Amino acid sequence: MGYPDTFQGFAVNDTSKWSEVEKMDFKPKTFGPLDIDIKIKACGVCGSDVHTVTGGWDQPRLPVIVGHEIVGEVVKVGDNVSSFKIGDRVGMGAQAWACLECDVCKNGDEIYCPKWVDTYNDVYPDGSLAYGGYSSHVRVHEHFAFPIPEALSTEGVAPMLCAGITTYSPLVRNGAGPGKKVGVVGVGGLGHFAIMWARALGCEVYVFSRSLSKKDDAIKLGADHYIATGEENWNEPYKYKLDLILSTANSNSGFDMGAYLSTLRVHGKYIALGLPEDDFKVSPESLLKNGCFVGSSHLGNRQEMIDMLNLAAEKGIEAWYEAVPIGKQGIKEALERCQSGKVKYRFTLTDYEKQFE
Amino acid sequence: MGYPDTFQGFAVNDTSKWSEVEKMDFKPKTFGPLDIDIKIKACGVCGSDVHTVTGGWDQPRLPVIVGHEIVGEVVKVGDNVSSFKIGDRVGMGAQAWACLECDVCKNGDEIYCPKWVDTYNDVYPDGSLAYGGYSSHVRVHEHFAFPIPEALSTEGVAPMLCAGITTYSPLVRNGAGPGKKVGVVGVGGLGHFAIMWARALGCEVYVFSRSLSKKDDAIKLGADHYIATGEENWNEPYKYKLDLILSTANSNSGFDMGAYLSTLRVHGKYIALGLPEDDFKVSPESLLKNGCFVGSSHLGNRQEMIDMLNLAAEKGIEAWYEAVPIGKQGIKEALERCQSGKVKYRFTLTDYEKQFE
Repeated sequence: MGYPDTFQGFAVNDTSKWSEVEKMDFKPKTFGPLDIDIKIKACGVCGSDVHTVTGGWDQPRLPVIVGHEIVGEVVKVGDNVSSFKIGDRVGMGAQAWACLECDVCKNGDEIYCPKWVDTYNDVYPDGSLAYGGYSSHVRVHEHFAFPIPEALSTEGVAPMLCAGITTYSPLVRNGAGPGKKVGVVGVGGLGHFAIMWARALGCEVYVFSRSLSKKDDAIKLGADHYIATGEENWNEPYKYKLDLILSTANSNSGFDMGAYLSTLRVHGKYIALGLPEDDFKVSPESLLKNGCFVGSSHLGNRQEMIDMLNLAAEKGIEAWYEAVPIGKQGIKEALERCQSGKVKYRFTLTDYEKQFE
Repeated sequence: MGYPDTFQGFAVNDTSKWSEVEKMDFKPKTFGPLDIDIKIKACGVCGSDVHTVTGGWDQPRLPVIVGHEIVGEVVKVGDNVSSFKIGDRVGMGAQAWACLECDVCKNGDEIYCPKWVDTYNDVYPDGSLAYGGYSSHVRVHEHFAFPIPEALSTEGVAPMLCAGITTYSPLVRNGAGPGKKVGVVGVGGLGHFAIMWARALGCEVYVFSRSLSKKDDAIKLGADHYIATGEENWNEPYKYKLDLILSTANSNSGFDMGAYLSTLRVHGKYIALGLPEDDFKVSPESLLKNGCFVGSSHLGNRQEMIDMLNLAAEKGIEAWYEAVPIGKQGIKEALERCQSGKVKYRFTLTDYEKQFE
């Protein structure tokens, strides 16, 4: 068997050996009239992949094939597909499906649809399993695939499909633009996009990082100010300054959220994008002092994805990425270095044609 | 000595005997050209009074005279006072001072001024101590005193000066009005006001309380829906429904914030008004599912206070209160019953003329 009956991918079979993958065949969901099949050319490696394969968020459905920053070529289109034709270059992110019928979806919030299905480690309403982009192909409803502007490279755009949109959407949904001061906590996969978008949208960008080690990169990415938070009372000069903070902090241990909240203007917002594996702890006082808000954000809707890709094309923005050939060894290295933060600032798996027919 | 040189009040001297007060004389801050002196006629008893005298929030400055829901008569006005004349009936709430010069103040957010001074257990910039309304008089900058509409009774309006404005401001600042669904968590001093305001503003009001015991009161106060949260999966029918929640929950122990957050629409807001003595704990997942926000709110600005008092006069809204004569015994009873929640729904200390000359 093989495409179109079965797809092939690299699966993790055991969370205790979370960086070891094995090739396996799998059956995609039944092809519907609004579905397309994508032959994958590249896929970003996301922190979510690591949280999933390690069981950090929760025990995954095993075997699991992760990867949700997918770029490839359309090789099949359903009868009612209107957005794509065979041969198009398309992207797919972390969401595979939503009902598109409920009030939430109709309001342009399909990313919050109560029935949303993730790109991997999830189950479609008909019981089919969802597998990610460390694979030969992916099948997806056209609403969750996006045309890639010609100006963007396949490898450089892949990480945008999750890390990019995760940072872009909360910026535009919370009024980022000229005259606004935006803080970015952490310079990593998410943070480096947050800096580039905030700059591209015309904001004044404040970057917070523990040490000075990422200062040069942050400035190159577009930061106007760089604050090393390892220093005592680092927040004093910045109190009541920022309209919005995007935090990419990935852990709550030793993280003083109150210090960041103190830098917000009255009713400013702190959006937590890195999703730690334990609860956020927020002191009532730190919310009260400036009436600020703490929230999170899930990806971005279809229009935001298209707008982001166009903005990237217009401004020449791509991920800062390291290409790694897909395969047992490449995936192992990418997952392990992603977990330990040893990447500037994103991995893209490439060379798919060498592993899959 | 006596007024105008010294004021007299009932002070707590020891947090381990937090409901026992002793009469004491104290010197008010120096009288300034924008200050007024208020001869107090009534004062509400607030949960903050209890948190302060018990040392629950933090060790207070002892001796402490609490009380920040003050109504009385203007007996002295500074040379530059323009809002009041001698004989006026005025109210004063939980804030005694702000700089009125910084960007925060100029933006109508004096309640978040970095230099704000509380009505009691606080220190003015000149080093004077601030004492509250369990006293003969209070001295305050005219900006933090408010004209009381004739239609409102002195005893019934007093609790509005803190509990009322604390619930009114976050409603109007977050778009409460016709067509909006507002949840109120807890039917107590704050909650009973939240229900009345939300109804008066034209919202559809959902009240959440552990048992059915307060259902009749909630309906009388203006609730459209009453949900007993003691039942398993009580939140299921209400997911993605509410625009805004005001929570008056006073403790985090055993409180499942995630269940309440699940009832919010996409990007809905949860405003925590009861200030527990420990940190809020929020799971990343519960913020992510609907992109909701968690925040708090501090009182309300001068214009909101005036608007609220006028709305109350127009709609015939007053606190549901129990009058208790001020004095050692009355204060002891009010503080202790307030601490154990045995009050429907607010105490007002009265009969000031029997204790103070």
